Amino acid sequence: MKELPNLDQLFEQLVNGHIPTLSRAITLAESRKPEHEALTTELLQRCLPFGKESFRLGLTGVPGVGKSTFIDAFGELLIRKGHRVAVLAIDPSSQRTGGSILGDKTRMARLSVNPSAYIRPSASGTTLGGVAARTRQVIRLCETAGYDFILVETVGVGQSETAVHQMTDFFLLLMLAGAGDDLQGIKRGIMEMADAVYINKAEGDNLQASRRAAADYRHALHLFPPSASGWIPEVGLCSGLSEIGLEEIYEMLQRYRRMATLQGWWEENRKRQAIQGFQESWRKMLEQWLHQQPGFEQALTKAEEEIRLGRLSSEQATRNLLEQLRSAFFGK
Amino acid sequence: MKELPNLDQLFEQLVNGHIPTLSRAITLAESRKPEHEALTTELLQRCLPFGKESFRLGLTGVPGVGKSTFIDAFGELLIRKGHRVAVLAIDPSSQRTGGSILGDKTRMARLSVNPSAYIRPSASGTTLGGVAARTRQVIRLCETAGYDFILVETVGVGQSETAVHQMTDFFLLLMLAGAGDDLQGIKRGIMEMADAVYINKAEGDNLQASRRAAADYRHALHLFPPSASGWIPEVGLCSGLSEIGLEEIYEMLQRYRRMATLQGWWEENRKRQAIQGFQESWRKMLEQWLHQQPGFEQALTKAEEEIRLGRLSSEQATRNLLEQLRSAFFGK
Repeated sequence: MKELPNLDQLFEQLVNGHIPTLSRAITLAESRKPEHEALTTELLQRCLPFGKESFRLGLTGVPGVGKSTFIDAFGELLIRKGHRVAVLAIDPSSQRTGGSILGDKTRMARLSVNPSAYIRPSASGTTLGGVAARTRQVIRLCETAGYDFILVETVGVGQSETAVHQMTDFFLLLMLAGAGDDLQGIKRGIMEMADAVYINKAEGDNLQASRRAAADYRHALHLFPPSASGWIPEVGLCSGLSEIGLEEIYEMLQRYRRMATLQGWWEENRKRQAIQGFQESWRKMLEQWLHQQPGFEQALTKAEEEIRLGRLSSEQATRNLLEQLRSAFFGK
Repeated sequence: MKELPNLDQLFEQLVNGHIPTLSRAITLAESRKPEHEALTTELLQRCLPFGKESFRLGLTGVPGVGKSTFIDAFGELLIRKGHRVAVLAIDPSSQRTGGSILGDKTRMARLSVNPSAYIRPSASGTTLGGVAARTRQVIRLCETAGYDFILVETVGVGQSETAVHQMTDFFLLLMLAGAGDDLQGIKRGIMEMADAVYINKAEGDNLQASRRAAADYRHALHLFPPSASGWIPEVGLCSGLSEIGLEEIYEMLQRYRRMATLQGWWEENRKRQAIQGFQESWRKMLEQWLHQQPGFEQALTKAEEEIRLGRLSSEQATRNLLEQLRSAFFGK
């Protein structure tokens, strides 16, 4: 990307659903160059009116649950229903190398060749916060480009579920039968965020076990406080491979949307999430700005030197630094 | 905890290894009350000279890998070797409820009744950053109380591995045979941090599969860049249940320490980690301070209102807020 694209052109072509422009806009949003961030800011301000009609579906499940196969099949169904589907993934797990582990496109053989689908390889970054912020922007860019169904997948089971939960309208948790108690430690935190729990691979020999698992989850979900939307989480069986339960899930999502819209929760939740995104981004920017202030770097370096020498605890150093900030920059 | 304890007393009893004092100091460190934070800061500054001799072992593995059984057995071995063992766990997975899911003490039947072991139930919090910061402090408090072997366990496989990796001397990854490719997505990010990968439950019928798994991991580890310490990650077999490979792991840790100390990496790494902890904590404190500034809350509220009304993107709002900060507080 040598010269900076023209904002008007970029926006117009984005609205027209020009794929290379979308990809370019996403690359700009993922860039850390100041001029790119400035351009992205203006672009996203223009994108504000778009995406009101979109459905943002968060999808998670332990590795091996069959997320890719599910997305490949469910995405096809969405497209048959007339949707344009964008698939994004949050994957902060590979910290040192950055980037995603699996080639997302190869994971979804059918979707990846479907002209009504846009698959973006996982955003990556050194902090989950950075990844999440960029994913929020990518969602809005995809919506502006005319994708009305956004699938945000999380890889692995960890912090990223919370991030995805905070940027989607509905949070679908895929589970496996017979995964057993060894997953309790994970399930609980995630299950409390789930609007629906579906047992995937509920096919053939696995069907009976899946029915039992579904019953277990139905019981378990009763133990949790009702979700903030008032929606009672649903439990069902599905199979991405055998395309079981996909219609049922689609209907559930429509029911949810009707209910949430009627209650005003849908819009309220979107607003809440936008504010969350704001709170995360101003923190990041504030720090970037601080580092540009004269004296700050030096104060930071000095503190770090004292810590290196074992003279200062990080807690004491923190207090000292803030003292310096007050007098030096804030004149107080 | 009605009245604030006396710092000198607290410190003296802590150095004497008085358990109730340690527990109280940890509770203070986990508290968010300003007076408790101030006391903790002073206390931790005094703890600075301690813990230089300690070994901080990070331990992780997917749920069900048998971490608790391993820790119970390995902790016993450490105590037989003359160590005093503290077991901590990072578990940010249960966001809404906070706290750990499993009763840590019941997970480790033998250690929990051993006078030379101290088991602290998982620190919890709304942000991983908060949990990590407190865990760093808890480590130093335990070391000051005379625990020279700190086991920091992570629950589940996600962001917290990175946090634990950044506060320990050695990162041990437990794996299971036949977990298969479905875990690749997770393994890579974690494996790249691992100083050693051990196949747990390598016993009975599982032995052959475990040997094959070990060979696979040895091969896989060759694909990664050498770890920053220059240490070549080792792969082995173990069983917490049958107490297999525990001596071998203990010897490996000693070899690592000799190597890392000789190279100066050991101390260097500790310093680097202390600075990391500092960088995380001053960011948190800066924000707390900002919120106490006149005008800041109002500016924040106004921006959030504009976002609610759909007039402002979070990116634009961020830029505006920083403008206001500059003029209002920094007079620039």
